[in-house]
Amino acid sequence: MQQFPEHLLSGYRNFMSGRYNDERDRYRTLAEAGQNPHTLVIACCDSRAAPETIFDCGPGELFVVRNVANMVPPFEPDGQYHATSAAIEFAVQALKIPNIVIMGHGRCGGIKAALDPDMEPLSPGDFIGKWMGLVRPAADQIQSNDLMTASERQTALERVSIRNSISNLRTFPYVRALEEQGKVLLHGAWFDISTGELWIMDAKTGDFVRPSDRSAAPLEDSEPAA
Amino acid sequence: MQQFPEHLLSGYRNFMSGRYNDERDRYRTLAEAGQNPHTLVIACCDSRAAPETIFDCGPGELFVVRNVANMVPPFEPDGQYHATSAAIEFAVQALKIPNIVIMGHGRCGGIKAALDPDMEPLSPGDFIGKWMGLVRPAADQIQSNDLMTASERQTALERVSIRNSISNLRTFPYVRALEEQGKVLLHGAWFDISTGELWIMDAKTGDFVRPSDRSAAPLEDSEPAA
Amino acid sequence: MQQFPEHLLSGYRNFMSGRYNDERDRYRTLAEAGQNPHTLVIACCDSRAAPETIFDCGPGELFVVRNVANMVPPFEPDGQYHATSAAIEFAVQALKIPNIVIMGHGRCGGIKAALDPDMEPLSPGDFIGKWMGLVRPAADQIQSNDLMTASERQTALERVSIRNSISNLRTFPYVRALEEQGKVLLHGAWFDISTGELWIMDAKTGDFVRPSDRSAAPLEDSEPAA
Amino acid sequence: MQQFPEHLLSGYRNFMSGRYNDERDRYRTLAEAGQNPHTLVIACCDSRAAPETIFDCGPGELFVVRNVANMVPPFEPDGQYHATSAAIEFAVQALKIPNIVIMGHGRCGGIKAALDPDMEPLSPGDFIGKWMGLVRPAADQIQSNDLMTASERQTALERVSIRNSISNLRTFPYVRALEEQGKVLLHGAWFDISTGELWIMDAKTGDFVRPSDRSAAPLEDSEPAA
Repeated sequence: MQQFPEHLLSGYRNFMSGRYNDERDRYRTLAEAGQNPHTLVIACCDSRAAPETIFDCGPGELFVVRNVANMVPPFEPDGQYHATSAAIEFAVQALKIPNIVIMGHGRCGGIKAALDPDMEPLSPGDFIGKWMGLVRPAADQIQSNDLMTASERQTALERVSIRNSISNLRTFPYVRALEEQGKVLLHGAWFDISTGELWIMDAKTGDFVRPSDRSAAPLEDSEPAA
Repeated sequence: MQQFPEHLLSGYRNFMSGRYNDERDRYRTLAEAGQNPHTLVIACCDSRAAPETIFDCGPGELFVVRNVANMVPPFEPDGQYHATSAAIEFAVQALKIPNIVIMGHGRCGGIKAALDPDMEPLSPGDFIGKWMGLVRPAADQIQSNDLMTASERQTALERVSIRNSISNLRTFPYVRALEEQGKVLLHGAWFDISTGELWIMDAKTGDFVRPSDRSAAPLEDSEPAA
Repeated sequence: MQQFPEHLLSGYRNFMSGRYNDERDRYRTLAEAGQNPHTLVIACCDSRAAPETIFDCGPGELFVVRNVANMVPPFEPDGQYHATSAAIEFAVQALKIPNIVIMGHGRCGGIKAALDPDMEPLSPGDFIGKWMGLVRPAADQIQSNDLMTASERQTALERVSIRNSISNLRTFPYVRALEEQGKVLLHGAWFDISTGELWIMDAKTGDFVRPSDRSAAPLEDSEPAA
Repeated sequence: MQQFPEHLLSGYRNFMSGRYNDERDRYRTLAEAGQNPHTLVIACCDSRAAPETIFDCGPGELFVVRNVANMVPPFEPDGQYHATSAAIEFAVQALKIPNIVIMGHGRCGGIKAALDPDMEPLSPGDFIGKWMGLVRPAADQIQSNDLMTASERQTALERVSIRNSISNLRTFPYVRALEEQGKVLLHGAWFDISTGELWIMDAKTGDFVRPSDRSAAPLEDSEPAA
């Protein structure tokens, strides 16, 4: 029989003797009672930016969607398959999760592809090309800015894309309604793989700031714009 | 300003003083050199079944797609947005990841919804209903078996769905070609939230067995069936 | 004279010098006073699943019926020979045994035969074909599920058959009456020959769970299903 | 949930930590390779006469039918359910078991019932009355012998019944044919619960003798007739 990857089996044994062993009761309770996560995180597939790792969360805490470049498409009830919209619907309508975090990160391969004018389709289906089309107008506008460095353009689009996804979340009628009632809060965050820094989006201004910057700030309202 | 969830900030501080602090060099190297993950995992959004936790994996190891019920749609190059297909394309064509694991789990809410004949759309868009339509024929066949208990039907569909996703993976021309060349291996796994058991799919028969069962078995090839 | 099998004689000598020697008084008392077993077990003939072995029971404890696939036919007072029904009658009415266990097991040859569409009669009498007809409707329904593997179908029918036998037990008027009075309890169990695991039927849901799973579970009532 | 009998669970734990633990490989091999028992034993349901105990046999050795009074009905291919005939068919035709032992025992409740002229049906179905009808002519003849004590009549019928079952085995065409070819051997045995003695039937004379008597006997042929 084809072998299951040994590094996964080995990691699984660590899990069983470690975390599962320590949290046996929690797992059983979560199994019996069902999940009740406090946050929906929409994150990137990137292997360097797992939300459970960055937020040090245990079982039952985060309901997690992961797609390329952590994007939310606009509400399109067209009868097609929509993996991300289905997960949002389930999280908000069935699980009643009160927090949604769009979590981006630096050096994102999807964003980089969107900014690459010479990018060839990765396959005849060109699913990545189509998928990254969700930020096409923004990507075109940023790409044309030849005063910013490539790295600055990349960070800029990563953050624009997070705000774009939050806007798209508000095209879902029930998300909008629940946000207006204060029952759902929408958040943005951006993770720097190299420094480990987490930058959090100011809901009012859309700026990304580090919580460490905030904690020392005497006046919450006067967070500096970026 | 609207507050970012305190439990996430608190978890993030743990991450920085713990894992990031311990693996600072690894993060920096991963940032500079880019990611090179050994495995693409397609997992469920469920908060109780994070692949990094179950496989005890660190940064850089797993490229992770998470959607409701860990499903892969068939190859449909129709110009629509396909979150999952885009991620598969990126993982296989751009990152050249050699292992793909479809990872299901017990008590899956999406599978439960697929088996519920009285399930109402969760919202007018009915994204979940459409999305779970990916296993509609299987769900109908299993649902009609009134001799099995609800729990048995659920486990059955969870496993059928994993095999179904593996079949759908093979409708992607490059996945099929690379598998035939031995450059990509397709795996199935099913996690029991309550007991922590990982059941692994036998690639030949499609049966799910526990690695602990196999390790001591003298006749690996003839494991399953009477 | 035709030789009695030497391995049986040799085993018998072990019994005499071992267990009988140790429990001489118990055997004598059981002989004088008659048997008073606490449990009727209806088990399979299979050489790998003897109830006295699996439950580590000594003389006087288990009144045991063994037939192919541990089945109970429905109550049919038609004047024919009914080996199993006669044993149930004797156990419940004459011996007043308060517990009945239907004990199935994995890789059961009778169940396998019932699921084999190409099964030829083993002899002109086709006793196995007729006997396994007791689960014919269930076998047909499960056999038609081509999404499950052969091994999954087998386990499914093994468990459906246990529940079927428990239903048939309730067609015996005195079993039903005594159960309603709380004087007889009906149980199901399924033994995994390979792992040695015993799965016990939840009387309420019909699901099979391992006692080890249950012992640590905080919410016993809500064990099964998502 | 209704509790599974604690004494069985406790015994099962002994089995797992004892016999299963010691013979793990044997169980796994038996699971993988299938069973290949050397002997079919047709024994009584009586809790004091389990064949695995008396012959000190482990997993995989004995294929066991247990019904009240260890009886074999004559070959009756009438399309009815025949638990015992089905098991014989499976043992001889599918498993090719070369030895068949009819194993009776003293103080048998079924035989006692057959000899009781005042025996009332145990239930309206009277399954025991019908089942013990298999030895009705013999029971009537022995019952009418008022020179023998009740205990002697009981032992007599227990042994007559064993020979009767062996005769009935020979009405199965394939059993008869295989016996004539020397491929199946038919044996009788009778167990004394009180003394632990095993009496073995002399195939030629039908007498029951103790193997200890035989081992010391200088001339095998001159075993004393009873």
